[in-house]
Amino acid sequence: MSKKAEKHGGEERLIQAIQSFWGECRSDAVVLAGGDDCAIVRAVGRGEELLLTTDQILENQHFVRGGHPLGMLGRKALVRSLSDIAAMGGRPLYFLLSLALPQWSIGRALREFMRGMRAAAGEHRLDGFALVGGDVARADLFAANVTVAGAAPRGKALRRSGARPGDRLYVSGRLGGSLLGLKRLPAGKVDMRNRAVRRHCRPTARLDLGAFIREQGATAAIDLSDGLSTDAWRLADASGAALRIDSARIPLFRGATAADALASGEEYELLFTAPPRAKMPARRDGLALTPIGTVESGSGVLLESAGRTTVLEPSGFDHFAGSRTSP
Amino acid sequence: MSKKAEKHGGEERLIQAIQSFWGECRSDAVVLAGGDDCAIVRAVGRGEELLLTTDQILENQHFVRGGHPLGMLGRKALVRSLSDIAAMGGRPLYFLLSLALPQWSIGRALREFMRGMRAAAGEHRLDGFALVGGDVARADLFAANVTVAGAAPRGKALRRSGARPGDRLYVSGRLGGSLLGLKRLPAGKVDMRNRAVRRHCRPTARLDLGAFIREQGATAAIDLSDGLSTDAWRLADASGAALRIDSARIPLFRGATAADALASGEEYELLFTAPPRAKMPARRDGLALTPIGTVESGSGVLLESAGRTTVLEPSGFDHFAGSRTSP
Repeated sequence: MSKKAEKHGGEERLIQAIQSFWGECRSDAVVLAGGDDCAIVRAVGRGEELLLTTDQILENQHFVRGGHPLGMLGRKALVRSLSDIAAMGGRPLYFLLSLALPQWSIGRALREFMRGMRAAAGEHRLDGFALVGGDVARADLFAANVTVAGAAPRGKALRRSGARPGDRLYVSGRLGGSLLGLKRLPAGKVDMRNRAVRRHCRPTARLDLGAFIREQGATAAIDLSDGLSTDAWRLADASGAALRIDSARIPLFRGATAADALASGEEYELLFTAPPRAKMPARRDGLALTPIGTVESGSGVLLESAGRTTVLEPSGFDHFAGSRTSP
Repeated sequence: MSKKAEKHGGEERLIQAIQSFWGECRSDAVVLAGGDDCAIVRAVGRGEELLLTTDQILENQHFVRGGHPLGMLGRKALVRSLSDIAAMGGRPLYFLLSLALPQWSIGRALREFMRGMRAAAGEHRLDGFALVGGDVARADLFAANVTVAGAAPRGKALRRSGARPGDRLYVSGRLGGSLLGLKRLPAGKVDMRNRAVRRHCRPTARLDLGAFIREQGATAAIDLSDGLSTDAWRLADASGAALRIDSARIPLFRGATAADALASGEEYELLFTAPPRAKMPARRDGLALTPIGTVESGSGVLLESAGRTTVLEPSGFDHFAGSRTSP
């Protein structure tokens, strides 16, 4: 950039710095990343469809200044969207990043945030995953909006709506750890030696698993972002079917109760359904795949516990629960 | 949605309400819009590339609560991104919308915001333009992030970097009106009988023009979002060339000076270059296309005024001008 433009272009410099933290773009899918009015990306293959998902991280809602390491937030901001791609059985291609930056965040905090995103991409082995564009603006409160694009074979993306009576209901991993970790966070600084804290602070998007269960014939999937009880209702509603969950079969994180497992958000495990003929191994790459129930005709989510069947109450997180939401 | 899920699902209800304000999705490009972990969209044609752009509107930065009608903001939020698609010579396909909503905004304000977006799409005759996904969260301050996808013929999207010595420099429309309108805004309520205020509050993305100049052989383009002086520097820098602008040729909005025209942001006219052999009419659909200068070897932007040549100082808007921006 010329000196004249540099003198004026604080915004351009900042965008370049953010791009440089992300690193070189090495994706075949990207024609032009950054520095123009739009990014230009190649169309996905003829046999593929494009997946799009967007999520925001907001100061005072998802974190409090000083209370959460920005690196952890950057990591989560990316994992949350990657998890949406995983739940569709897709592969991530590239992303856009909008940042609203208060003065305190410009400098070390922003560097940590971007390093957290970069680390998440590395841990998920997303070598060609490119930052193709974004927007930066000054702000009173920190906000980040991540939009991730992915690809899935045409007509094969896993939806929430595909569960059919007779299907089995599965969940990956062990649940409840994220909630246990969250409970230990307000006590002070982040103690990453604690397994539950690590579980909460460093979730993993189940990208390989999403593609695997799609290939194995899964009929529906959702990622557990707001808790098993809430997300099970979403899957049941979208599919127009009932889910029956056997409480005793829910795989528990060490130290967690079934109630913890039902309420724990930000688990980013996959809840999915598949017909009995589909071959689902008990483990995939070291991750447990546990049948926890069945899909039935009807609606809603039933929980079987100690010989009693009850209607499961959604207990996960909802930003607008109880507020006046009818615009 | 079932009653159980509804009882919990304030967020889902809100998303459904936002979708309903936007209206039915009638786009062939969209396979699945909303209600799942990702949107599913069809790949663009084999001979096309995908364009992506994202922009945010932030309370206390782009507007003040009570000071700006939310409908105007919704309109601008969409036009800004559409203008980026126009500057690449593309056609808009669909968009994602993230909303950070304080309590005051949930209700009439949000309805007005969505109506403004809807009106902008209507005025730009974007019948199939679909809202395919988004995110809503409670927040202390209102924020909207718009991500628009478009398509352009492969290898033909207009970049900022294509200007070559010998090309002519053109601008569409008449400049300075947006700044005049902005100056009249703080006086009180928005007086839409004033032409400059209308110009500022209801900009148009030059979508038809962008496609037209691409077909006519334009070599580079940028939309005037931050002012002619700033955006001319961007085009010159990206192209590695110098621009020489004849001040007397800059087409002025009634009542505006050349200084107004150079500084006025949010014009959303197109600044573009084309070789002398390219046929550029003096008007296109009633919009003036004015040759205002030339592209030369060198760098930077020169302004010729009353027989003197000076280096043009960027005078447009920069969010981070003068702030500590090195992260």
